[in-house]
Amino acid sequence: MTELDTDRKEVSISEFFDKNKQMLGFDSPQKALFMTVKEAVDNSLDACADSGILPEITVKIEELGKEKYRVEVTDNGPGIERSEVANSFGKMLYGSRFFKERQTRGQQGLGISAAILYAQKTTGFPTEIVTKVEREMTAFHFVLDIDIKKNSPHKISEIPEIWDTKSGLKITIVLKGKYVSGKQSVEEYVRESAIANPHTTFHLILPDKTVDIERSVDEAPQVPIAVKPHPHGVELGELVSIFKEYENQTIEEVLEDKFSRVTKQTAKSIVEKSKLKDKKISKLTRDDFEELMKAIKETDFMEPRKDCLSPIGAEPLFKSAINSFKEYHPAYFSQAVVRGPFVFSGHPFLVEAIAIYGGDLPKEDPIRVLRFANRVPLLYQSGSCAITRSVSSLAWNQYGFSQPVKDQLPIGPLVIAVHVASTKIPFTSEAKEAIATVPEIMDSLDLLLRGVARQIKTMRKKEAHKSQVAEKFALIEQILPQIAAKSSKILNLEPPDITPIISKVMGVVAFREIDGELFAENYTEKSHSFKVVLKGEGTFTDSVKNLKPFQKVKLNFSREIVSSSEIYVDLPEPILLGAYTLPKVFKDE
Amino acid sequence: MTELDTDRKEVSISEFFDKNKQMLGFDSPQKALFMTVKEAVDNSLDACADSGILPEITVKIEELGKEKYRVEVTDNGPGIERSEVANSFGKMLYGSRFFKERQTRGQQGLGISAAILYAQKTTGFPTEIVTKVEREMTAFHFVLDIDIKKNSPHKISEIPEIWDTKSGLKITIVLKGKYVSGKQSVEEYVRESAIANPHTTFHLILPDKTVDIERSVDEAPQVPIAVKPHPHGVELGELVSIFKEYENQTIEEVLEDKFSRVTKQTAKSIVEKSKLKDKKISKLTRDDFEELMKAIKETDFMEPRKDCLSPIGAEPLFKSAINSFKEYHPAYFSQAVVRGPFVFSGHPFLVEAIAIYGGDLPKEDPIRVLRFANRVPLLYQSGSCAITRSVSSLAWNQYGFSQPVKDQLPIGPLVIAVHVASTKIPFTSEAKEAIATVPEIMDSLDLLLRGVARQIKTMRKKEAHKSQVAEKFALIEQILPQIAAKSSKILNLEPPDITPIISKVMGVVAFREIDGELFAENYTEKSHSFKVVLKGEGTFTDSVKNLKPFQKVKLNFSREIVSSSEIYVDLPEPILLGAYTLPKVFKDE
Repeated sequence: MTELDTDRKEVSISEFFDKNKQMLGFDSPQKALFMTVKEAVDNSLDACADSGILPEITVKIEELGKEKYRVEVTDNGPGIERSEVANSFGKMLYGSRFFKERQTRGQQGLGISAAILYAQKTTGFPTEIVTKVEREMTAFHFVLDIDIKKNSPHKISEIPEIWDTKSGLKITIVLKGKYVSGKQSVEEYVRESAIANPHTTFHLILPDKTVDIERSVDEAPQVPIAVKPHPHGVELGELVSIFKEYENQTIEEVLEDKFSRVTKQTAKSIVEKSKLKDKKISKLTRDDFEELMKAIKETDFMEPRKDCLSPIGAEPLFKSAINSFKEYHPAYFSQAVVRGPFVFSGHPFLVEAIAIYGGDLPKEDPIRVLRFANRVPLLYQSGSCAITRSVSSLAWNQYGFSQPVKDQLPIGPLVIAVHVASTKIPFTSEAKEAIATVPEIMDSLDLLLRGVARQIKTMRKKEAHKSQVAEKFALIEQILPQIAAKSSKILNLEPPDITPIISKVMGVVAFREIDGELFAENYTEKSHSFKVVLKGEGTFTDSVKNLKPFQKVKLNFSREIVSSSEIYVDLPEPILLGAYTLPKVFKDE
Repeated sequence: MTELDTDRKEVSISEFFDKNKQMLGFDSPQKALFMTVKEAVDNSLDACADSGILPEITVKIEELGKEKYRVEVTDNGPGIERSEVANSFGKMLYGSRFFKERQTRGQQGLGISAAILYAQKTTGFPTEIVTKVEREMTAFHFVLDIDIKKNSPHKISEIPEIWDTKSGLKITIVLKGKYVSGKQSVEEYVRESAIANPHTTFHLILPDKTVDIERSVDEAPQVPIAVKPHPHGVELGELVSIFKEYENQTIEEVLEDKFSRVTKQTAKSIVEKSKLKDKKISKLTRDDFEELMKAIKETDFMEPRKDCLSPIGAEPLFKSAINSFKEYHPAYFSQAVVRGPFVFSGHPFLVEAIAIYGGDLPKEDPIRVLRFANRVPLLYQSGSCAITRSVSSLAWNQYGFSQPVKDQLPIGPLVIAVHVASTKIPFTSEAKEAIATVPEIMDSLDLLLRGVARQIKTMRKKEAHKSQVAEKFALIEQILPQIAAKSSKILNLEPPDITPIISKVMGVVAFREIDGELFAENYTEKSHSFKVVLKGEGTFTDSVKNLKPFQKVKLNFSREIVSSSEIYVDLPEPILLGAYTLPKVFKDE
C-alpha cells in the first residue's frame, strides 16, 4: 500500500514472479539451470508416486551457446490429460495439490511454470511438452509459453505424435543457464534425490559426463492419502471460517466431518464442555468460538494419521546411506531414527535422521548436513533452514565434537542426513530451499538430533574402549608369551607359567566384543560375581556368578543390543576394562 | 502441476499466502508481532518519503491476553484517500510501487495485507484504519478484513471521525503474538531503523518500557524519482515483450523512449549496427532480436541515474554510526564508503558500508553485521543474505582477524553496517528478510567490504605503531630523566646530560601523531634527509631536508589524511619508529 498515491493497479501473479524470479530460486544462470531440472524431476517423482509407478527419469542437458542450455526431462509417469496441459504448465497457482492435506513434493502450482516463464524471458523460447496417457493411442506434443499480464497459458501448437511408451511425459526447456559440476549442481541434486528415493532409477546425460543410478529398492512407496486437519493446531480465525462454510450443519457434525481424529463421542463432549448445545452455527459469537476453541484445546485426540505421510523409513534410509557413502569407508553408521507424527498448525509431520561417522570423511571441515523435505534434497539456503539451525544449536562439545563458534556447525568427520516429511512443509520461500523455523518442528528436530548425537557419542566411546582393550590383550596374548618364550630359550629353561604375571599386569575383569558377542574374562587373582547392564535404546541386564581367575564367560545379550549400548558393571573402576562402573543409582534397578 | 489428476483448481493469491504465512515472515507468534510492526512502520516511512514529510511514528504494543496483542502504529504521513483504503489494505498484490523503477521500502503490495490476514486468521479480529488527508475536513475510520477466496477487501464499516492532525494514518491490528525484548525484537528493529533513517523520530510504547528516539537530521532525504530500465541487463525475452507492446513505433523510438540512458544518437547507431534499419517491429524475428541484443550489449551507455536511489550517504551514515555505538566507546570508525550505482537485470543499485572497531565491543564473539536494504534493517535469515555471505567469504585472516571456520563470520570486536539500495531489491522471499546472492550484487559487496576491511587493518596497524611509539617516548620522556635525577641525587651530583643516552636507547627517527598532526623527530646521532609518503584513499608526499639530532619538524599533511593513511619513509627499517620503510617500487614516484 502507499498513502496518497493515485496510480494504483492490481498485479498478476505472473507479473509478480516475473519481477521476483529470485523468490522462485532463479537468481542466477547457474541457479536457474538447477531449478529447472529440479522442478521437472520433482514433478515426475510426484506423478509416479500418485500412480504407484516405479520411476525411471532421464535428465539431459545440452549446451546450445554461451549461457544457453536445453534441458529435457523424460519420465515413465502417467502423463497428463490433453485438456489440462495448458493450464497446468502455463498458469501460476493452478494445480491439484494445494488444497489437499497429504505429503507431496510440489504443492504450489508454481515451480514448473516459473521455469517456463524464466526461459521465455531470457531466451525467448517457448516450452515443449510431450504427454502420453495410457488410454490414448498417441502422445500429444504441445508448444506453449505464458501470457504474463493475464497469468494464462499461451498455446502455440498442439499436435499428435507417436511415442512408443505406455505413458509418460517429456518436457524441453531452453533457457539462459550456467552448467557447473560439484557442489550445488544438478548432479548433486540427483544423487541426493536417489538417497531419499531409493525406488527410482535416474539417467543423467550432462555436457561433461553421463551418470546412471539404478534403483536399490524394487517397491514403490505407499501412496500417501489425503487427511483432514487435526483439531490441535487450528487457529481461532481458521475455526470460524471452517464453520461459516457449513452453517446448515450442527456444530457436532462439522467437528466430526471436517476434522481428523474427532469421533461422534468427542464432538459431543466438546460441544457440551463449551456450553454450545443446540446453538446454531450462524448464531455463534466470537466469544462462543473462543469457548469452542478452549474446549478443543482441552480435549485429547489420537495422534494424527500416519498414512498421509511417506517417510523414507529407518531401514531404507540406513541402506541408502550405506550405499551412498561406501566410498568414504565410514567407521560406523548410527541407526536411522524416525520420530512422529507430530502436528503444527493442524498439519501432521515427522522427522527422521541417520548419522555417518569416520573413515575418510574430512576431519578438519564442518560436519556435513544433508537436508530433505518430502524426499526432496535441499541444496541452497542452508543457513536459514530449520534443519541446519537445529544441528548448529546442539551443544556439540557435549558429544565430543569441537564447535569453534556457538550456534555454528561443529568440526569433524560426520554426515547427518535429516528428512522432514509433512502434508505441508513450511518453506521460507516459493523456491522451497529452506524449512522455516516453526517452533514445533524445531522442537522435534532437537529431540531427534540429540538422539542421533548420543548414538554417535556412544559409538565413539565404545571405539575408544575397544582400542584400550585391544592394546591390553595384545600385551598378554602376544607380547608377554613371546618375551617368556624368548627369555626361557636364552636361559635354556622350560617356558614359565606366566598366568600370575598376566594377573599382575592386567589386574582386571575385561569385557570384550568378539563377533558381536560380549564376553567377560577375569584377569585378577580372585573370583568375582557381578551384574552387567547395557544401556542404549533400552536397558538390558545379565549377571555373572563366581567368575574364577582366567575364566571366560559369554554374556546373554543379542548382537544388536551389544553394538548399540554402553556397558556398565558393578565392579570398581580399577579392576574394570572395557566397561564403566555401574553408577549407584542404577544398582538396585 | 500434476500428471493425470483431474481435480485441479486455481488458487487465489490470498489463499496461497494464507497457507504459506511463513513466506511472508509470519512463522511464529514472535515473528508475527515483529512483522506486523515492521510492515506498518515501513509503509509509514515510504509514505512520508514520497511526500517529503519528516516522519514522526508512534508504535504502541499492548498485551490483551495470553499470546494476544494489539499493535497500533500512527504516523504523520500524507494519509490515504478514502476510495483507496479498502483495496490497498484488503487486497494482495495491489499497489502503486510495483511497476516503478525507484527505491522504496515496500514494492509488493503484500506486507500490510499479510498482517491483516494473519490477524483475522489467528484472533478473528478485523483491522482498524484511520486516515486523514490534508484536503479533507475529517478523518475516516475503516474496519475491514480480507475475503480470502476472492482476494478482495471485506469492508465492515467506514465512518467519519475527528482527528486533530494535518494528515496521517493510524492502523490497529489485534493478533496472536509473542512479545520479546533484545535480539530480533521490535525495539531492535526500530533502533536500527533510526540508524538508516536519521531524519525520523520514533516513539515506542512497549509492554515493558517506552523508548523515544529523536531525529538527528532535520532534512528529509530527496524523493527518489522513477527511471526506465537501463539497457544493460535487459534479457532477450524482456526485450521482445517491451518491443511487442509498441509495434506502431519505430525501433529507434522504442529504444530512446522506453530505456534509460539511450540518446537519439545511440538508438540510431544500435539500429545500424544490428542491420535493422527500416524494419517494422511487427516483422522482427527471434534472430533479429538476437542481433539487436548483441548491438545493445556492445554499446557503452552512461551509468544508470543515481537520483532513483536514496543512499543514506557517507556523512549521515558516519554520524548515525557514531551516535548509535557511543555506549561501546569504539576505538575507531572506518570512513563510510558509498559505491555505485551498478546495474543488475536493468535495475540500478548501490552499496554503502561503515565499520566500527574496538572499545567495549565483545572480543570473543563473531563480528556483528548490520544489514539494511533500502533503509530497512534486516534482522532475520542472515545466513542466506548476500550481505552476510559477502562478509563471511572474505579471507579475514589477511586483515588480522581470526576466522575459525572458512566462509563463516570472523571473531572480534567489530561491527559492519552495510546498506544495499536499489530500485528493485532481489529479496529471497516475500518476507523481505534476505537479499538474494545475485552475482552483480555479490561482486560489488565484495569490492566494498575489501575496502572497509583494509581500512580497519590500516587503523589497527597504526594503533600498534602508535603504542610502540608511545612506549619508547615514555621511556625517554619520563623514565630515563627520573632515573638520571634519582641517581644523581643519591650520588649528590648535578643531573647529567642524558641526550647521548637517549640517542643510544632510541636510535631512531620517530614519527608521532599529536592532535592529528604528524611530526618527525630525530633521535639518532646523525642528520637525515628523507621523503614521507602517506598511503590511504590516495597517495600524499612530503619531504624533510637535513633533520638534525634532537630536532623535531611538523609534516605538511592535513589531519584527515594523517588519520586514514599508513606512513612510509625512505629510511632503513632499523632507524624508523612509527612508520614503514618505503618499498623500493615507490621510491621514484
